[in-house]
This record gives sequence, C-alpha cells and structure tokens, in this order.
Amino acid sequence: MAAAAAPAPVGKGILLKADPIAATFRDEVKGTLEQCTVRPKLVGILSTSSAPSKFYAEFTKKQCEELGVEFVLKKTGAALDPELGEGEGVEDAIIEANTDNSVHGIMVYFPIFGPQQDHYLQQVVSPLKDVEGLNFKFHYNLYHNVRFLEPRSLLENTTGPSQATSTIDGEVPPPGMVKSIIPCTPLAIVKCLEYVGVYNRILPYGDRAYGKTITVINRSEVVGRPLAALLSNDGARVFSVDIDSIQEYNKRPRVPANAEGDAAADAEKKTAAQRYHPRHAVHPSQMTLQEVLAVSDVVVSAVPTASYKVKTEWLKDGCICLNVAADKNFEKDIREKASIYIPAVGKVTILMLLRNLLRLQQYQRIQEEVQAKDTAVPN
Amino acid sequence: MAAAAAPAPVGKGILLKADPIAATFRDEVKGTLEQCTVRPKLVGILSTSSAPSKFYAEFTKKQCEELGVEFVLKKTGAALDPELGEGEGVEDAIIEANTDNSVHGIMVYFPIFGPQQDHYLQQVVSPLKDVEGLNFKFHYNLYHNVRFLEPRSLLENTTGPSQATSTIDGEVPPPGMVKSIIPCTPLAIVKCLEYVGVYNRILPYGDRAYGKTITVINRSEVVGRPLAALLSNDGARVFSVDIDSIQEYNKRPRVPANAEGDAAADAEKKTAAQRYHPRHAVHPSQMTLQEVLAVSDVVVSAVPTASYKVKTEWLKDGCICLNVAADKNFEKDIREKASIYIPAVGKVTILMLLRNLLRLQQYQRIQEEVQAKDTAVPN
Repeated sequence: MAAAAAPAPVGKGILLKADPIAATFRDEVKGTLEQCTVRPKLVGILSTSSAPSKFYAEFTKKQCEELGVEFVLKKTGAALDPELGEGEGVEDAIIEANTDNSVHGIMVYFPIFGPQQDHYLQQVVSPLKDVEGLNFKFHYNLYHNVRFLEPRSLLENTTGPSQATSTIDGEVPPPGMVKSIIPCTPLAIVKCLEYVGVYNRILPYGDRAYGKTITVINRSEVVGRPLAALLSNDGARVFSVDIDSIQEYNKRPRVPANAEGDAAADAEKKTAAQRYHPRHAVHPSQMTLQEVLAVSDVVVSAVPTASYKVKTEWLKDGCICLNVAADKNFEKDIREKASIYIPAVGKVTILMLLRNLLRLQQYQRIQEEVQAKDTAVPN
Repeated sequence: MAAAAAPAPVGKGILLKADPIAATFRDEVKGTLEQCTVRPKLVGILSTSSAPSKFYAEFTKKQCEELGVEFVLKKTGAALDPELGEGEGVEDAIIEANTDNSVHGIMVYFPIFGPQQDHYLQQVVSPLKDVEGLNFKFHYNLYHNVRFLEPRSLLENTTGPSQATSTIDGEVPPPGMVKSIIPCTPLAIVKCLEYVGVYNRILPYGDRAYGKTITVINRSEVVGRPLAALLSNDGARVFSVDIDSIQEYNKRPRVPANAEGDAAADAEKKTAAQRYHPRHAVHPSQMTLQEVLAVSDVVVSAVPTASYKVKTEWLKDGCICLNVAADKNFEKDIREKASIYIPAVGKVTILMLLRNLLRLQQYQRIQEEVQAKDTAVPN
C-alpha cells in the first residue's frame, strides 16, 4: 500500500498583482490627458547616487512617456557628478521648479538627507505643484478629514477650526472648491482596497469602510499614519502598529462597557456607533499585535526591514493582506490564510502621482484666473 | 624627603555659566515688558508624562512669573490623566490656542511622538504665535538668510526667489518689515558666542563671525543644522558634523587650489574670500573630525547621548567650547585645552523664547492693524 498522499492545498488565496488595478487608472489618466489643452510637465529632481532612486526616476520617465506627459529629469549633487555631495543643490532645484511657470508638477526622489531634513525639503515644494502630496497642508487636511479646498488657500498659511470642521459629505466638491491632494502611497493603497471590495459602495461616500477592522503596520508620516487616518476617516476601525505601541484610530466614539443583558445600554451603544465624529480620534490600545491581527479583516504592512515578517498563524482566516514595503513583510505561506494577497502597490502609486499632476495643473489654472480677476483694473 | 608635589594646573580655561548672559536679556525683556499695554500671554502645552518636559514646564512658569508674563499651562493626554495616551489631544490644544485671540504665544513640550510626527505638529502652530521658531517658514528664512519679513507674510505659503534674495544688510528692518523669528536654542547659542567675543562687533552686521572656524556636532533640524546655517550666514566657516558625514557650510565661495607662489592667483583668492554669496553653501568635507577640531576656534556639541565625548586632545589650544546636550559632551579635562567652556545654555534659551513672544505680540498687532485697514469700508 502506497503511503497516503499529503492533502492537496485547499482554499489557497488569490495572488493579486497591481497591474489590473493600475490599468483602470491608466485609462482614467489617458482620458483626462486627451482633454488637456496644455501638455502637463513634470519635473523629477534626482540628487543622490542611490540606485533605487535612479531606478524609480527611470520608471517615472517610462510611465510619463507612455501616457504623453512631459517628464524632465533634473539631476543635481551626486546624481550629476560623483564629486558633488549627496543632495547638493536639491533645494535650489526645487525653488527653480516652483517659480518656473512651464512646470506643473514636482517630484523629489527621497530619501536624501534623512527624515528630518527631507521633511523640511517637502515643505519647500510649492503645494500647487506637489504631486506627491507631501506638503504639510495636505497632511493637515488628511488628518482633519478636510476633503475639499479652494485652490487659493494652497498659498495661505492658516490652520484652525474653519478648516478642521469643513468636512462635507458627498463626492463632488462644492462650487469654487476642488479636492485636496492625497499623498500618493496611502492613496494607492486605498485604491487597491477599493478594488478588492473593502470599500462598500452601497454605503455613503466618506463612510464606505465602516464595519471593517484594518491593521496598518508602520506609523511613519509618509505612509502609515496618513493611511491609518484615511481609512478611519472613511469609517474603518484601524489599529496602527509601530515598534513600540499600538493605537486605535476610529471616528466612532468609544462606547463604555455596559452590564450584560442591559438592553437600553445596548441600544445606546448601537446608536453611538452610528453617529460619528467628523474625523478619527486616536487612543492607545491595550491589545497585542496577535490580538489585533486576530480580528483584522485587512492587514497592510510597510516595514522597511527585510527580516520583519507578519506571522501567518496570527492572521484571521480569509483576511486581505497588502505588502507596501520593498521587502516582503508577509511569510511565504501567506495565501494559506489570506483570501487575497497584494504583494506590491508601486504601479498604482505612480498613477496616483500622475492623477495628482493633472489635478494640480487644473488648480493652477483656476488660481491664475482668480488672481487675474483680483488684479484686473475695474472698468 | 617628601615626594615631589604634582605640578599645579596652569592655564586652566574659564568655566562660564549662562547666568550672566541670561541676565542681560532678562533686563532687555523686562524693559520691553514695562512698555507693553497688554500683558503678553504664553500657553504651554504639556501632553506627555515625561519628567524632563514637566520640569521644563515648571521652569517656564517660574521664569514667566518672575518677569510678569502670563503663563497658562494646558495639560492634555498622559500629562492630564495616566489613562490617556501620550500626546493625546495635543493637536486640538494647539488649534484652540491658535484661534484664541487672548493668546500671544504657544510652546509645545517636545518630544511627544518622535521626530516625524513632532515635525508635523510644529507646523500646526500658527507662525504668528510660534515663540519657539520651529515653523517651516522660520527655518526657510534662516537657511536662506532672510532676516526681515512683513508680518502678513506669516499667513502666506510661498517660497521662491523673491524671498530667497531679499537679504538686506543692516540691523534695522526696512519700513513695514520686522525681524524674522529665529529658533530659540540656536539663537541662544549665537547670543552666548556674541557674549564671549566670537562675534566681532567691529565687522559689519551680518558678517561678524567672519574669520572664525566653528565646528557644530549634531545636524538635527532643531539645533545643529539651523545653528550651522546661522553661523555661516554670519560669516563663519562652519563644519557640520553628523554621525555619518562632515559638511562645510560657508558663504564664501570655494577657491580653487593654485600653484605655489602665484601672486596673481593669491590676490584673486583674497578677493574671492571678501566677496560672498547672499547665503551659505553646503559642500561635503573630506576632513576627519580630528582634523576639523584641530582648526576650530569654537566647538559646539549637541549630541543627545551620555556616552558621546569630544576628545580634549583633539581640540585646538585656547578654543571656546559650548555644550548644548543635556548630558556633557566634553571630557572632564576640557578646560585644559579650552580657554572658555560654557556647560549649558538653557537659561538663555528661555529668554530667547520670551523675547520672541514679545516680538510676536507686536507682529500680531501690526497684522491686525493691516487687516483692519484692508477690510475697512472706504469713505
């Protein structure tokens, strides 16, 4: 008698590459481009000798050329001449592109000097040309769930309750307003989650992730924190996991524990969950990573460490997993537990960047028209 | 016969505590306060359980009370209730203080969430109330050697050559303009260096550190980089030392190496050194720490690590040393080499903060007047 065959793997999850998701946005960008009277021009600023940055610059160029966007690669510092310093001249290159009226969008290839000085440089890019959405203004709007803005406000430096409470339900901006720009990578992740049905289009706009529990591993200002805020502003219960703490992001108020079987309290609990704050609140969580993974419908990991792995055995059966890091943060057997696994989002990110470029080109035009009107001599 | 006595220490450098330096600014602040019609109000926001932050908040309170400044300590998060998270509510507290017309200045006790998220919070503080000078606008002006600004520009979000080239020589702001705000700690260090004669008042304003070579150890966006930029914009040759690189900051152009004995080239070299850029340029340096210390007239160290020590034996005899870190970055025998050693600058920092508060109160008044004029109905 032959030895019993090992049981065939059953219920293996789907491996979903980003290509079909990117394709839908490529069509959208192409359609918008066809209606453009002025061909948009994107300037990429490469100032280091980093191989991944050089690779990404070439990838941007290829994507732009395919779609018909003009791409100019401006090299400075060590990217131009090995005798020059890493990052030398990058700030001047940004300022030049800020003031060049033929340039519609600017992207800078980071990392350059490290998180702190790079954050400074991100503020130097004019918000009206910031295709990556890294300016403080866009982060502020994102964290405060401010979805629309007047183009002219991008040239003002004000933060206060007038902005913080201007959340408006509905997908279409009110007259005179446009959509805020959302940082590319978090936006690409949201688009992937929309594609795989984590966002429920039957629910009202602005609350379509309601009912979903999502864990985001990494809390950087570039990916993890804005992503957790976006998802919770869209209604999800989000666990934000960092090396030393776990926080819960939720726009629904925390409900006090109530005595078992107390129907009135239960009813109140339900009502409380249906009312929600205009934006998410953040609270420390006492749960462990194992506990949050056990209840998570979606797990997004963006840890820039090759050795970091999310334990498959801790995941909820049938969850959706998305890897954002350059290295794989999930174990090889991830599809034994995950119903859908998306291994990378870069191809969607670049399209979000080009989508932002087209929007910003439009905002620049509106801003110019407003300015021309303001300075016109009355008859 | 008794054993020969050990030789008495000769030429020991001066230990200079910050008190007499602080005293001169305390008098200045007192004098300005006496002329104020509205008593300035500073809000301190404490949101963590950190003991040093709590201590610093108490120190601020004491200093304010001594001088007659109103100080309100706003506690949120873990500072208010151990059940709440570290930093919980801090952003809302900032926004509340931004919009409260009775508040003239805001200071936030950092660190809270780590450098990246803290940098975000620093941008939330209105530049018109930012007594610490941590807003991007002030850093941009500092790096670009923009010394004066119109108060209304603090509410605008523009960076470009119009600002970058508006450096004006002279200590007095031109009509309609005021002095930019300089981050407290770098400013306090400059004031200490002025006090000990590193700045030469015979030289023209804006170039009074010319001829001095200064090493700054640390390149953070809060202390090291702004300090290096300030000193080099004031004419010094500055070596900026970080864990993995040494850079030279200099507003004088780099002079090409010339053949020995070439008198014409030597003359040209001299002229080139006397002409200078409107602001410092940054270049990588091939020198080692030992080499830069050997030529430095001044060494400032701000490394937040107890074990880090500058080697006394590497210092130039008679140099001036200044310790900014909470722990001592210099060895015990520092005064064997240093002519002057300043062990801490905190007492000067707080006075710079109060000086900024008084200036910002004035800028707010100017801004209100301009705004009232702009919105007034013409007769």
